[in-house]
Amino acid sequence: MKLLDGTATALKIKGELKAEVEAMIQRGERRPHLAAVLIGDNGASLTYVGAKVKACEELGFESSLITRPSSATEEEVLEIVNQLNNDSKIDGYIVQLPLPKHINEQNVLLAIDPKKDVDGFHPENVGRMALNLPTFLPATPYGIIQLLEYNGVETEGKHCVVVGRSNIVGLPVSILLQRNTNPGNCTVTITHSRTKNLAEFIKSADIVIAALGKPEFITSEMIKDGAVVVDVGITRIADSSRKSGYRIAGDVKFDEVAPKCSFITPVPGGVGPMTIVSLMKNTLLARKQSV
Amino acid sequence: MKLLDGTATALKIKGELKAEVEAMIQRGERRPHLAAVLIGDNGASLTYVGAKVKACEELGFESSLITRPSSATEEEVLEIVNQLNNDSKIDGYIVQLPLPKHINEQNVLLAIDPKKDVDGFHPENVGRMALNLPTFLPATPYGIIQLLEYNGVETEGKHCVVVGRSNIVGLPVSILLQRNTNPGNCTVTITHSRTKNLAEFIKSADIVIAALGKPEFITSEMIKDGAVVVDVGITRIADSSRKSGYRIAGDVKFDEVAPKCSFITPVPGGVGPMTIVSLMKNTLLARKQSV
Repeated sequence: MKLLDGTATALKIKGELKAEVEAMIQRGERRPHLAAVLIGDNGASLTYVGAKVKACEELGFESSLITRPSSATEEEVLEIVNQLNNDSKIDGYIVQLPLPKHINEQNVLLAIDPKKDVDGFHPENVGRMALNLPTFLPATPYGIIQLLEYNGVETEGKHCVVVGRSNIVGLPVSILLQRNTNPGNCTVTITHSRTKNLAEFIKSADIVIAALGKPEFITSEMIKDGAVVVDVGITRIADSSRKSGYRIAGDVKFDEVAPKCSFITPVPGGVGPMTIVSLMKNTLLARKQSV
Repeated sequence: MKLLDGTATALKIKGELKAEVEAMIQRGERRPHLAAVLIGDNGASLTYVGAKVKACEELGFESSLITRPSSATEEEVLEIVNQLNNDSKIDGYIVQLPLPKHINEQNVLLAIDPKKDVDGFHPENVGRMALNLPTFLPATPYGIIQLLEYNGVETEGKHCVVVGRSNIVGLPVSILLQRNTNPGNCTVTITHSRTKNLAEFIKSADIVIAALGKPEFITSEMIKDGAVVVDVGITRIADSSRKSGYRIAGDVKFDEVAPKCSFITPVPGGVGPMTIVSLMKNTLLARKQSV
């Protein structure tokens, strides 16, 4: 069993990005600039946005954080989006989800200029991904693809079972892995809450992408010997033995599944760090206007 | 075994569309108007465009056919596209593919205003389909969905195996059938030229969508008893016993497969008529500006 170490892989990619930014600076060019919009004070959102700002500092990117209280109206958020679309010094930006309930997320996401949509959530970018045109790939699926690529995991002709069909992970990763690319060229099965015999599908997989958000749902009986397992789940579980009062669990029972695998991601330290570095890679792409 | 009769189903939908157009006229509104751009004199393209113009007449739509010789330049085609985008009397239009080799199809498709893209090929519309937002669904996948719907074929929880991953059939139909909609909610496996054990995947399917373009590739040993089989293939095969010198074959060996099926499409008379009526339905949607 080999660990698909997201922290180490992200570090390698960060080194590449950092070197590229340094070369830009030496050529007298402007640094990449990522902006993040944060509405309200959701704890997890603060943590995620904080990690993105920190990654910018680490890599030599500029960052701007635009915050508003949770009482902000949809019009106010759309006005921020409009300003960011028109600010030539901002290469790319994200609007941290979830937004407060009185704001229509879809309206906000559709207002983002696809050329600055480094989260890859705009329909035009989702379509470009499906059609294999240059685009910003959504950060988590892009992170998974790079994790496979940098660790030399073969995908061509493999049967990949994706568990979960969310717009931000399950669906896009199922599209990416079936494309005629490398990584890619998998036979892909997408499963979800209406799937019958889910355990049988998972058991037939050479590659399992677990993105259903049910902690420790996938057990060793469901896994074929030698399978590759990528665990996208991140759930906080109460744990009185920890100082924090909780521990982070993935969708896979790591201890019992790992011995059967050829490759497996840990949680934390697997897909998580790859997601942030993929957002940074998209921001650099936006800076170079290569999409 | 029940026949999924595309001709009869299309006739039913045509009746609905015709009634809706008549009601529009009675309210003093303008008829839907579809334009088609045909470059060159490819025989099959002439036949397809002719069938679309005929369908317009049948349903009370207006139609415009814009033809240019195969020597037309990319700039000339882009200029036609630009004019159609800005012509408020044209609700929707298609550029018949394939285009002559010296013209970049992607450039032309990307120039079409997504609001008039009744073929549903523009990335923005592909992305909207994936995200389950209102859009023009590409005509063949949309036709397949309606064929299942109008004939009461249950899809929820079924395992659907799609054979072929083209941008115009395999990929979009795989996305549509996994969505949380009805028809939809299938567990979907997308297979293609790099798939190993293709016959085994097909044999495990409750619903087979055959869109690989290899005449009579799918035989009875590959089909599970009671399966639903949708055959998208249309290939001309030389046949000296016919007056025309050819016959039309699907991707499925109909005679031996049909007895095992709960539902099966004939070729011709299955998916073909559904494709054209779906284009008409999209044009009516464009007229009503409901996308």
